[in-house]
Amino acid sequence: MLRVPDGRVVASTDVLVEGRHFRRNWSSPADVGVKAAAQNLADIAAMGALPRTLLVGLACPSDLAVGWVLDMIAGLVAECGRAGASIAGGDVTSADCIVLGITALGELAGARPVTRAGARAGDVVALAGHAGWSAAGLALLQAGTAGPGELAGDIGALVRAHRRPEPPYAAGPAAAAAGATAMLDVSDGLVADLGHIAAASGVCVRVETAGLPDCEPLQAAARTLGVAWQDWALAGGEDHALAATFPPLAALPDGWRIIGDVREGEGVLVNGERWNGRGGWEHFR
Amino acid sequence: MLRVPDGRVVASTDVLVEGRHFRRNWSSPADVGVKAAAQNLADIAAMGALPRTLLVGLACPSDLAVGWVLDMIAGLVAECGRAGASIAGGDVTSADCIVLGITALGELAGARPVTRAGARAGDVVALAGHAGWSAAGLALLQAGTAGPGELAGDIGALVRAHRRPEPPYAAGPAAAAAGATAMLDVSDGLVADLGHIAAASGVCVRVETAGLPDCEPLQAAARTLGVAWQDWALAGGEDHALAATFPPLAALPDGWRIIGDVREGEGVLVNGERWNGRGGWEHFR
Repeated sequence: MLRVPDGRVVASTDVLVEGRHFRRNWSSPADVGVKAAAQNLADIAAMGALPRTLLVGLACPSDLAVGWVLDMIAGLVAECGRAGASIAGGDVTSADCIVLGITALGELAGARPVTRAGARAGDVVALAGHAGWSAAGLALLQAGTAGPGELAGDIGALVRAHRRPEPPYAAGPAAAAAGATAMLDVSDGLVADLGHIAAASGVCVRVETAGLPDCEPLQAAARTLGVAWQDWALAGGEDHALAATFPPLAALPDGWRIIGDVREGEGVLVNGERWNGRGGWEHFR
Repeated sequence: MLRVPDGRVVASTDVLVEGRHFRRNWSSPADVGVKAAAQNLADIAAMGALPRTLLVGLACPSDLAVGWVLDMIAGLVAECGRAGASIAGGDVTSADCIVLGITALGELAGARPVTRAGARAGDVVALAGHAGWSAAGLALLQAGTAGPGELAGDIGALVRAHRRPEPPYAAGPAAAAAGATAMLDVSDGLVADLGHIAAASGVCVRVETAGLPDCEPLQAAARTLGVAWQDWALAGGEDHALAATFPPLAALPDGWRIIGDVREGEGVLVNGERWNGRGGWEHFR
């Protein structure tokens, strides 16, 4: 039983499938647990709520090593600890592949819930956390540039960001308290997710790539692979950074950096133009 | 956002895998949705709470017909309607097999939560709903006695119970209000689940098969297949009946029938003896 003294609970659920959302040869079981927890707990923070409880459903082959499951659960527990939540229960069954069904619950603790629909022309757009690091890390793994084990420098930081995203949980409730008008966590890619705010709010969201924070590691990795770093920053998903809009005179909480603004209109403009990149993570492609 | 005016929310999560928990040639997509919702909503009722919200995670092959998914969701919606709940959100992704991750949330509405740990020597044991009907229906399907489509009579009732269990949702909060000391829903089999109450409460639970309600359809089907109907009633899972213990002088609410009592000791006795049946549904067998 979860106690929510203000009588309001928010919830989020996600399904992770082996081979699609993680690969056992690229991620340790603890990494898988961390990532599974992080993506749901970030959803809760993005509503301006405090993550409190995780429910875990696991379907896996009956010959999966128990050690793998225990290490994965250790990852779930570790990430819950980072977010201030705990695991309340779950369900285990057998299947041909590993599937995780994770549900996170949170409490608003008196705050109003922040949705995607409140952005207004004149607001600023801000980001807390990294954009594109996870996608860059995945690209490095796919290119064979990075193998298993610990890695140093920028490449190491990007691969770690892919294996273990670090959502800035506290930035969510702080943004709500500072008056954020719309918020979400960047799971599909920055442009795609800002597009969700634009559509839900009936506005145009403008982003300037010059304002994107922490791009040096992306630029270094892009030079190595001969690609454009902006593709990762604008279309890379699964970092679970938080993106929000704030009234123009709001004092941004710690960790938030302005990356654009909101105008009348529709859709997302990057450096003043419709962006023709990949457009973010799409299911069923 | 779910409002729980008394500030307490209960939750349950389950994973259903095609081929293990359902077969597309034996169950319609709506049946699958009904069953997936029922087993989670029954968990909520078994805590004495009111089912309120369902979260749905779906992983499925990308070539699965959209109609199948829509019909499955219609089943979820229908069962939520029976239980007084609604679907609040979900997540869809692709996988090689169909996996459903379902989470139900409920509110206690001022009641105390009923756990498995409160049974005391001297209590009566009572059942609301059917025991063994789903297992008998599955056996009829496996034996080829029943094919797809509607069936009449006892066989039809049992097959329908397998395809669409009907948990007695209202019996849960009613039992809590009547002073139930322990409660759960019968998902693994009556003896196995009463064993959970016995273990958690530190008591011995005794069941008399002569007291089991609604056994005539089981007996008719058992004659057809040449098996013992008690195996279904005692070990058959997935009916999601509610089983509870009550103080000896409690007035049982509508729908509850006494099937045994609680003594000092441990484990479960059937007609005074340790039961040597299959012992209920086991994962990973």
